[in-house]
Amino acid sequence: MKIAAIGGGVIGGGWIARFILAGHDVAVFDPHPEARRIVSEVMANAGDAWQRLYQAPLPSPGTISWAASIAEAVSGADYIQESVPERLDLKHRIIVEIEAAASPQAILASSTSGFKPSELREGATHPERILVAHPFNPVYLLPVVEVVGGGDAAQRASALLESVGMKPVQIAREIDAHIGDRLLEAVWREALWLIKDGIATTQEIDDIIRYGFGLRWAQMGLFETYRIAGGEAGMRHFLSQFGPALKWPWTKLMDVPDLDDELVDRIAAQSDLQSGAHSVRELERIRDTNLIGIFHALKANDWGVGKTVSTMENRFYAREGKKVTGYPLRLHEAHVTGGWLDYNGHMTEFRYLQVLGDATDAFLIHMGLDAEYRAGGHSAYTVETHIRHLAEVRGGTRLIVETRLLGYDEKRLRLHHAILDDRGETVATGEHMLLHVDTGANRTVAMPAALMRALEAIIAQDRAPHPDHAGIGIRAVRLKEASA
Amino acid sequence: MKIAAIGGGVIGGGWIARFILAGHDVAVFDPHPEARRIVSEVMANAGDAWQRLYQAPLPSPGTISWAASIAEAVSGADYIQESVPERLDLKHRIIVEIEAAASPQAILASSTSGFKPSELREGATHPERILVAHPFNPVYLLPVVEVVGGGDAAQRASALLESVGMKPVQIAREIDAHIGDRLLEAVWREALWLIKDGIATTQEIDDIIRYGFGLRWAQMGLFETYRIAGGEAGMRHFLSQFGPALKWPWTKLMDVPDLDDELVDRIAAQSDLQSGAHSVRELERIRDTNLIGIFHALKANDWGVGKTVSTMENRFYAREGKKVTGYPLRLHEAHVTGGWLDYNGHMTEFRYLQVLGDATDAFLIHMGLDAEYRAGGHSAYTVETHIRHLAEVRGGTRLIVETRLLGYDEKRLRLHHAILDDRGETVATGEHMLLHVDTGANRTVAMPAALMRALEAIIAQDRAPHPDHAGIGIRAVRLKEASA
Repeated sequence: MKIAAIGGGVIGGGWIARFILAGHDVAVFDPHPEARRIVSEVMANAGDAWQRLYQAPLPSPGTISWAASIAEAVSGADYIQESVPERLDLKHRIIVEIEAAASPQAILASSTSGFKPSELREGATHPERILVAHPFNPVYLLPVVEVVGGGDAAQRASALLESVGMKPVQIAREIDAHIGDRLLEAVWREALWLIKDGIATTQEIDDIIRYGFGLRWAQMGLFETYRIAGGEAGMRHFLSQFGPALKWPWTKLMDVPDLDDELVDRIAAQSDLQSGAHSVRELERIRDTNLIGIFHALKANDWGVGKTVSTMENRFYAREGKKVTGYPLRLHEAHVTGGWLDYNGHMTEFRYLQVLGDATDAFLIHMGLDAEYRAGGHSAYTVETHIRHLAEVRGGTRLIVETRLLGYDEKRLRLHHAILDDRGETVATGEHMLLHVDTGANRTVAMPAALMRALEAIIAQDRAPHPDHAGIGIRAVRLKEASA
Repeated sequence: MKIAAIGGGVIGGGWIARFILAGHDVAVFDPHPEARRIVSEVMANAGDAWQRLYQAPLPSPGTISWAASIAEAVSGADYIQESVPERLDLKHRIIVEIEAAASPQAILASSTSGFKPSELREGATHPERILVAHPFNPVYLLPVVEVVGGGDAAQRASALLESVGMKPVQIAREIDAHIGDRLLEAVWREALWLIKDGIATTQEIDDIIRYGFGLRWAQMGLFETYRIAGGEAGMRHFLSQFGPALKWPWTKLMDVPDLDDELVDRIAAQSDLQSGAHSVRELERIRDTNLIGIFHALKANDWGVGKTVSTMENRFYAREGKKVTGYPLRLHEAHVTGGWLDYNGHMTEFRYLQVLGDATDAFLIHMGLDAEYRAGGHSAYTVETHIRHLAEVRGGTRLIVETRLLGYDEKRLRLHHAILDDRGETVATGEHMLLHVDTGANRTVAMPAALMRALEAIIAQDRAPHPDHAGIGIRAVRLKEASA
């Protein structure tokens, strides 16, 4: 699938980064002299963010090519994302150029935050394939995209966008500014009045959001939150209780404040006071790190945006699933992310055991002791672990684990993992004894024949001598001990 | 400090739970027949949430007492939180009763979401101590509280609220509905129109929020997010770029939709479709678990609400700091939270090493190898670890670690930890060898005399024989191995 991007600013760059990281080739046209710099900066941020976001091995990235014209960029493209400035005449002119060179089946999606598909389609040769696909910044991390326009093109676009880790929301009826920006505008207008009237500062408004309802909205949005507020009686009760308040004069939204010099000065000064200690580049990095943390937190709870991340990871893992060859077994990789570092700037001690434990899980799945088998009431529990820390691991490192089966009997497994960094150096080893258990009865039981056959096949490959340190305890000679 | 709560619904119950968990005694008055049930349910949720939220040992909770009258509840109270229904006449009547029995110095804070302090103060004997302290649900988790009314009372109230883990935002000028609810009302009104006009469903609106800007607002709010959108040029550029859009007719907020039967039916039906698979009780638990995950994620990044959590934990630790007596040393406790459980419902393998590693850190601080010492360019790195898993650990367990110093020399420490559950059973042991290093030169160096003296004093207490398993490796007799 070939993708074309017309316009390579912050939004266009975010689209390009997302497509390329998901493995698609992208042809870009943007005559702006700074376009390559902006896109390459966004791509650097996005690449770093994806490494940290996804624990699964990422696909090989696609390639970016810079086209000399719109015609060159869109020729042969299956999907074209337009992200040029918000002027309808400009968008019309570009659509004419795109249609002259693109396949009639190609989807033409606009990042416009304000215009409706019917406006974009005026005068088009193939209007039905022109859509709105409106994302939110940063496009490479925030999943939501408003898909407006309907029909087969909207279905196909949504499938593509979903496959690159997004959450397409198809909007049934077109409306100025779609949905998200209307909600944002409503808040923005109210906030401007609060500043203009001297009720609150930008810092105070932001704090009320981020220490308050923003924390609810990151997970549930507006209606599901209010459903809870209605208590056992639910949404209907909430509406009957809070409906009347809507009639109260709690707004000045009948009018829009003039963004005169005085108001602009006031907002800019308050914003400097609030956020000026960080450059915008720093704020971007902080934002992305926070987003990744929130994504991981919701993934642990299998909720909201966390499910989107899991879906992508499962896809990445599934594609990797067939690749196990050679011995020692290479079944598990891990990326060392910012949250994994300690105060020394090294991977925190317990993350070593996380990597070793994940490698053990990968071995168990490999031998057939997978989720389906576990659902039948049996599992394997680690009872003993010996870790040797051999080298420090810094952030951004990709670790790979080499696993050996040192021995087994009907009830026991003895595994050895070596964790290698991206230069092939062994940074730690783990030796582990596991017991096969009946989880209901909570006692050790013999493994079935199928698992024993799998172990027999694996251990037949384990031809090298055992490592010298295997079976050896912590040696503590010549230490001062208590004079008991 | 004695606290009184007048009104024990969901909001009142949230206040009561927060004050009690922070160690304050609370006297409650609420004549509603269901009040005790509602408050006890909120307190159960809150207690569970605080156990999971804070890694530090919690203070001993305060006690709740149910008063037979307003006078009994507020007599001798230093702080009175009123959370009765939103009717001004009712609030005035209750304020009269409170003032008749309360000390003139007591702060009287109202949870009102709509009324201004000037309205509440009408006819009061001591109007200057009457404030608005408007929280957001769930009060025991969301930190933000709008403090309106100013003066000495607002300062004193903010100090108290901050001390129980809240983020008080003092609002300079009173206004109907304060700030948060005005922003929420603006979004709510726009959302109602979107539903009424058939543009989107409750699910679609919630998805656009929770997969989109809600994720930004949980960490930065509105203005700081837009500051980034302005790029290097910052807030002023953003205002000049997006200001004009404010004049566009992107809203119907000049009018409020009638919440007639048809609209109520439509919203209730859409909400059932979206969220009906979970009861409101389940949604509450999901919400709290997600909030805790987001709090932890932002704590790891030392940002926003995460800083509030850290501040509380540091306070809890500081109070615990003096309590180290006896041997083996009890320096570290941990709560087993939902995110620590694996697919078997037990504490995940690597969390054992997290607990052991945190216990090692606590030992290092105890012996003087603390942050200040590390800042001087020396630290201790674990080079070898031997873990024995002896029993499963379920969610909600409070673990305590007993630590022994088995031996040391100038450059090495040999530690032994036993992790005990709340019944005193040893669930795991860890034996660890650490090296004292010069972090700049990245090599092992001798410890200074002060640390050696501290170790000498500690090991003098280590009179018991070493555990049988100390120094012993993983025993793997009679396993089938490869026939090399």
